[in-house]
Amino acid sequence: MQFFNKTSPIGIFDSGIGGLTVAKRIIAMLPNENIVYFGDTARVPYGTKSNETVVEYSYQDAQFLINKNVKLIIVACNTASSVAINKLKEKFTIPIIGMIEPGTHLALKSTKNGRIGVIGTNVTISNKAYSSELKRLEKNLEIIEKPCPLFVPITEEGWLDHEATKLIAKEYLQDLKDFEVDTVILGCTHYPLLAGVIQEVMGESVTLIDSGMAASLEVEDYLNGRGIRNDSNQLGTHQFYVSDLPAKFKSVAERFLGTEIKHIEKIDVDSLYRG
Amino acid sequence: MQFFNKTSPIGIFDSGIGGLTVAKRIIAMLPNENIVYFGDTARVPYGTKSNETVVEYSYQDAQFLINKNVKLIIVACNTASSVAINKLKEKFTIPIIGMIEPGTHLALKSTKNGRIGVIGTNVTISNKAYSSELKRLEKNLEIIEKPCPLFVPITEEGWLDHEATKLIAKEYLQDLKDFEVDTVILGCTHYPLLAGVIQEVMGESVTLIDSGMAASLEVEDYLNGRGIRNDSNQLGTHQFYVSDLPAKFKSVAERFLGTEIKHIEKIDVDSLYRG
Repeated sequence: MQFFNKTSPIGIFDSGIGGLTVAKRIIAMLPNENIVYFGDTARVPYGTKSNETVVEYSYQDAQFLINKNVKLIIVACNTASSVAINKLKEKFTIPIIGMIEPGTHLALKSTKNGRIGVIGTNVTISNKAYSSELKRLEKNLEIIEKPCPLFVPITEEGWLDHEATKLIAKEYLQDLKDFEVDTVILGCTHYPLLAGVIQEVMGESVTLIDSGMAASLEVEDYLNGRGIRNDSNQLGTHQFYVSDLPAKFKSVAERFLGTEIKHIEKIDVDSLYRG
Repeated sequence: MQFFNKTSPIGIFDSGIGGLTVAKRIIAMLPNENIVYFGDTARVPYGTKSNETVVEYSYQDAQFLINKNVKLIIVACNTASSVAINKLKEKFTIPIIGMIEPGTHLALKSTKNGRIGVIGTNVTISNKAYSSELKRLEKNLEIIEKPCPLFVPITEEGWLDHEATKLIAKEYLQDLKDFEVDTVILGCTHYPLLAGVIQEVMGESVTLIDSGMAASLEVEDYLNGRGIRNDSNQLGTHQFYVSDLPAKFKSVAERFLGTEIKHIEKIDVDSLYRG
């Protein structure tokens, strides 16, 4: 049923642009892979929507990528990963890698004192996505979770080093400091952009876990293990699709991706409904 | 073609919950009116979406209210008002009142030095919704516009009096202070919740224009003028519909409305597509 080969692209989807920080990691680690990215910008954010809605949207997003003949799908959205990953794996036969498991594994390797902090959107935190997976793997952890909903808009505004950003970070992260965590999972794909401020507030001794980086390592392992890594000598092509193209999109997206976006195409959101 | 009468409800729609600050004004001013509110929470925010998408969604939102037999529609969303109001008036015969015209009229009455500031979302500001209407009415104005995209998430977080909120307000509003405006249009329905901080930063001599309040005055005039004001002695009923019911919705919505929400119902977003 699967017609992909080594040169088939890696598919990445997100509710919007946050997943571009994951695409950035993949491109850096696997420069020869072709990539198809889909950002559901017409329906962003998923983090404020019900679980039922997020599952339905995730099905549509995955189907869009499958129609592009991808060999693997990365759910580069913590909300969709926390809510929909098992449903996606049930529905589709293609390998699907989310954010939660890779981030969890890397956090477990990192912690020495067994105290882990998790930060993310309201939905990711209230679903206890990371904490239940952490506890499933290691019962003796002490975990503190904190939603940080202002981190997303502040990164999109580009205030990565603003005094207000530091105040917001101090307010959100104080509980994690009091809890004396040695490891913090950045449970939202926007947050790596704030790694500087978060590290400053938490202190240098605390390890920040970038789930996108962790997922990239897992993708590399998977491709090597199955022998489907693209062994071309050429740099891969990168195609970006969005369901809406709002004002300022390109400049904000390029800040997230860390490089110029050459091919970007708006698709009709209704086409997703038709699957 | 219109079957409404005096007791028919007033329809209000918004992309989400911001319009509840407008509903609050309407309820205070016209306590005997029945109200049907629709918040398109499954597709919020409109402010980051393309004009084309906002128009299409606005058609669907208005049609939902018309199906509820409303006698008048308030577009309680500055983005939809700025992008879609003329298209809505072309498409539907029912009276439609947006945020832009009432806010503009009140600002013109208020200003003494002819220097007006407008704050709103990226879309409202980049569409020059308020400034083009202001200049159409009075050529000799001096207008400064400033998008304040962080004001929406910060009100939803409930940080109405936080030190970070003051820093953000100071950063956004400095240009307006330098411009010596005597009137500021709060061009987003969330912003009345930040009126305290905005007034503090701007100084007591500056008049803040709440577009929802201005629209309520216009609605009252309209109903009186047409003789279709509800002359019942009973308090009106208030029905709230949303296209999604995310976590924490009720508590945040009640902060915006300023009172308890008794009747709230989630409708299937697909039903909007069918019109």
